Amino acid sequence: MEMEQMVSASSHAEAGPFTRAWHWLKALPEKLWSKFVSVATKAKKLGQDDPRRIVHSLKVGLAITLVSLFYYFEPLYDGLGVSAMWAVLTVVVVFEFSVGATLGRGVNRGLATLLAGALGFGAHRLASFSGNICEPILLGLFVFLLAAVVTYIRFFPRMKARYDYGLLIFILTFCLISVSGYRDDEVLDMAQKRLSTILIGGATALFVCVFICPVWAGDDLHNLAAINMEKLGSFLEGFGNEYFKTPSQGQSMEDKEILQGYRSVLNSKTTEESLANFAKWEPRHGRFRYRHPWQQYLRIGSLTRQCAYRIEALNGYLSSELKASQEIRAKIEDPCKKMSKDCSCALKELAQAVKTMTKPSAANCHIANSKIAAKSLKSMLKTGLWQDTDLLEIVPAATVASLLIDIVSSTEEIAESVNELASLANFRSVDNTEVAKGESKLSCSSSIKGPHHIITIHASTQSE
Amino acid sequence: MEMEQMVSASSHAEAGPFTRAWHWLKALPEKLWSKFVSVATKAKKLGQDDPRRIVHSLKVGLAITLVSLFYYFEPLYDGLGVSAMWAVLTVVVVFEFSVGATLGRGVNRGLATLLAGALGFGAHRLASFSGNICEPILLGLFVFLLAAVVTYIRFFPRMKARYDYGLLIFILTFCLISVSGYRDDEVLDMAQKRLSTILIGGATALFVCVFICPVWAGDDLHNLAAINMEKLGSFLEGFGNEYFKTPSQGQSMEDKEILQGYRSVLNSKTTEESLANFAKWEPRHGRFRYRHPWQQYLRIGSLTRQCAYRIEALNGYLSSELKASQEIRAKIEDPCKKMSKDCSCALKELAQAVKTMTKPSAANCHIANSKIAAKSLKSMLKTGLWQDTDLLEIVPAATVASLLIDIVSSTEEIAESVNELASLANFRSVDNTEVAKGESKLSCSSSIKGPHHIITIHASTQSE
Repeated sequence: MEMEQMVSASSHAEAGPFTRAWHWLKALPEKLWSKFVSVATKAKKLGQDDPRRIVHSLKVGLAITLVSLFYYFEPLYDGLGVSAMWAVLTVVVVFEFSVGATLGRGVNRGLATLLAGALGFGAHRLASFSGNICEPILLGLFVFLLAAVVTYIRFFPRMKARYDYGLLIFILTFCLISVSGYRDDEVLDMAQKRLSTILIGGATALFVCVFICPVWAGDDLHNLAAINMEKLGSFLEGFGNEYFKTPSQGQSMEDKEILQGYRSVLNSKTTEESLANFAKWEPRHGRFRYRHPWQQYLRIGSLTRQCAYRIEALNGYLSSELKASQEIRAKIEDPCKKMSKDCSCALKELAQAVKTMTKPSAANCHIANSKIAAKSLKSMLKTGLWQDTDLLEIVPAATVASLLIDIVSSTEEIAESVNELASLANFRSVDNTEVAKGESKLSCSSSIKGPHHIITIHASTQSE
Repeated sequence: MEMEQMVSASSHAEAGPFTRAWHWLKALPEKLWSKFVSVATKAKKLGQDDPRRIVHSLKVGLAITLVSLFYYFEPLYDGLGVSAMWAVLTVVVVFEFSVGATLGRGVNRGLATLLAGALGFGAHRLASFSGNICEPILLGLFVFLLAAVVTYIRFFPRMKARYDYGLLIFILTFCLISVSGYRDDEVLDMAQKRLSTILIGGATALFVCVFICPVWAGDDLHNLAAINMEKLGSFLEGFGNEYFKTPSQGQSMEDKEILQGYRSVLNSKTTEESLANFAKWEPRHGRFRYRHPWQQYLRIGSLTRQCAYRIEALNGYLSSELKASQEIRAKIEDPCKKMSKDCSCALKELAQAVKTMTKPSAANCHIANSKIAAKSLKSMLKTGLWQDTDLLEIVPAATVASLLIDIVSSTEEIAESVNELASLANFRSVDNTEVAKGESKLSCSSSIKGPHHIITIHASTQSE
């Protein structure tokens, strides 16, 4: 097979245009098939990564079909006329992945249409008083002013975040109504029909979005905060062994992947902000009240990123060229491993606390432990243990130690902000303080079990 | 005045509802006025930050007014009928800030309407053959399948980046046409009218967007890459003096602001990616060819962010609690200041080279200098100069030195990627190598002048 391709490739150069076209045509089905296979693989992966995508696609199909058929059947069609197509348009444009986004767009669209319709009607009326010559000039002026001002308002960051779509629809509806050229009663009739079809479309979209496997942006934001902390925890968990391993110890690809997981945290800002914006539209659902402190997640997110930047700097020292020598690393191994392990446990417990919406209890203990390790590292540096070693060789190790100390303080800040979230959102507390103390002491000493342990605490409080 | 307010505030608690309402009403104009003033200030600042925003708003107003009046005048209105409103709709929805975004949306909208119209007409025809009972079922099935599949395709990252809007319009048009319930000739007539109005709207939007003070996404991306490098350079320029200053030396607010400028680089990924996507739609303009290597800017951007992460770690050591003692800092002052100054110069020269689209000539020299400084720092660490000092006190200083060495290598990587861009995009080179050598040597020794110097080189080559 390969031989054949090579021969055909070499003969291409001398062959005439027809022969080349024939070869191209002969290779086409195979090319198309391989393209198809690669696309299908990607599609499968997209679905496996997040099965909600498949459900969402089916939901959109369902909502559009419902509205389309509603539009198709003639009795209804006669009633609403051409404006019925606004129902289809509304569903297509308003239906988004999460409930918050759909609600936001729907409310934006509805309110903007109503307000702009009223204003446009007023403008139309006002202009019609001014006589035949002045009317188009006046209308043109109104449209120009409104479009320019509202477009400028769209640049305000706050307006852009929440009302961008509404402002767009506002311009659109105002222009359509004010310049429509219909008589007043026709305009009113049209406006009423259009509004009712938009309501039908919006209601269909919302109904399907909320009642069939809803996707809540709030849930996503909540989970993202937890997952990001967990990713940092996983890096720190693996870091100790990776940095202090002897050259003979290999590393599996899987370990490397876990270590690189933190990278997605570095660029999470935009996702978090848009999720928070959507979440603010969402009603009470599941474990979340209507005015859940979504803003606090952004604060946690920014501190998590802060920690991720430091981890990024630390990650540079994992490559062998920048590593300190074996003996020097051995000297700081114990406290450094302890610090990274304890920070990892603290982050993972915080993540678990957010996930289960309980007050983080053992995290503080881990942070205290990591601080003790930092102190012991500092006092170790004070001793004369280092007098005979070359300072140049110590520098990379000292940097790693120093970055780890920074990460400890960063973790503490994250813990504080999670505690703040816990009190703002009334996370359940582990009631029996005696039991909790005992439990957390246990989990501090055997910190490797980390997450599993917390699940135990959680289970034990639930059964109370 | 304040006294009065205090008195009125204290009397509120005991006052009846009417008195309170009266107080509220009395305070209302003032409140509204202060709100208005704050909004006006913000609006002014938005305009000052980027005057193109004001121009853009006026442009949108103009384009919509043009199309609206076109729609308003009756002779034309009779010709195109209700579909004329699609022209207004197209302008409002397609007109974006940059030419690339507008072109992308326009092309997406036009192509999607054409394709979906044809497909929808086919589906409508096919279903009409199947008899009265089967027709709605078949149509519903078509709509469901197409909407679900195309919605799923929107999740593909590549499709989302470039064709998201087109896919949306595709679903919309297909549903509107296939379910329209008109007779075949009516559908064709309608489709033809709608397409022509969309073309009119799209052409108006594009015309105004391109020919009146155009905003090119490519220019923005190009400048952003340069500005980001410059911001990092400004931090490094100020870092040396800031870190090694004696406690008696104060710091102005302005210096602090310049030092914090790098923070915006940390989260620049999303902006860069969307600008690159828009830029790919843009035709040849100004200094850019049609197939300008926009992808390379993303590579430069990611390396710049890498460097910014390290600077973020470095920035933590500027706060006084983490600073090493005066004497220890004094020992490493010379090479560290040199490293940060040379890196700063290199970054600023690279930024200047990108801005002026010339091959960076002196940057390599600066990088070589900073490497020499790094070496001298390393050899200084080797000497016995440190035997009598406490290691714990050295650690923060060692970390700073180590991070600076990392930044040097990061700068080198950035320089490589800028060189790659220079050869991909055929940047002008400084021809006379002898002159260039002399010039760059000069600029290396008096590196403080940095940017100004490059402008001189640039001017001298232009006059040749």
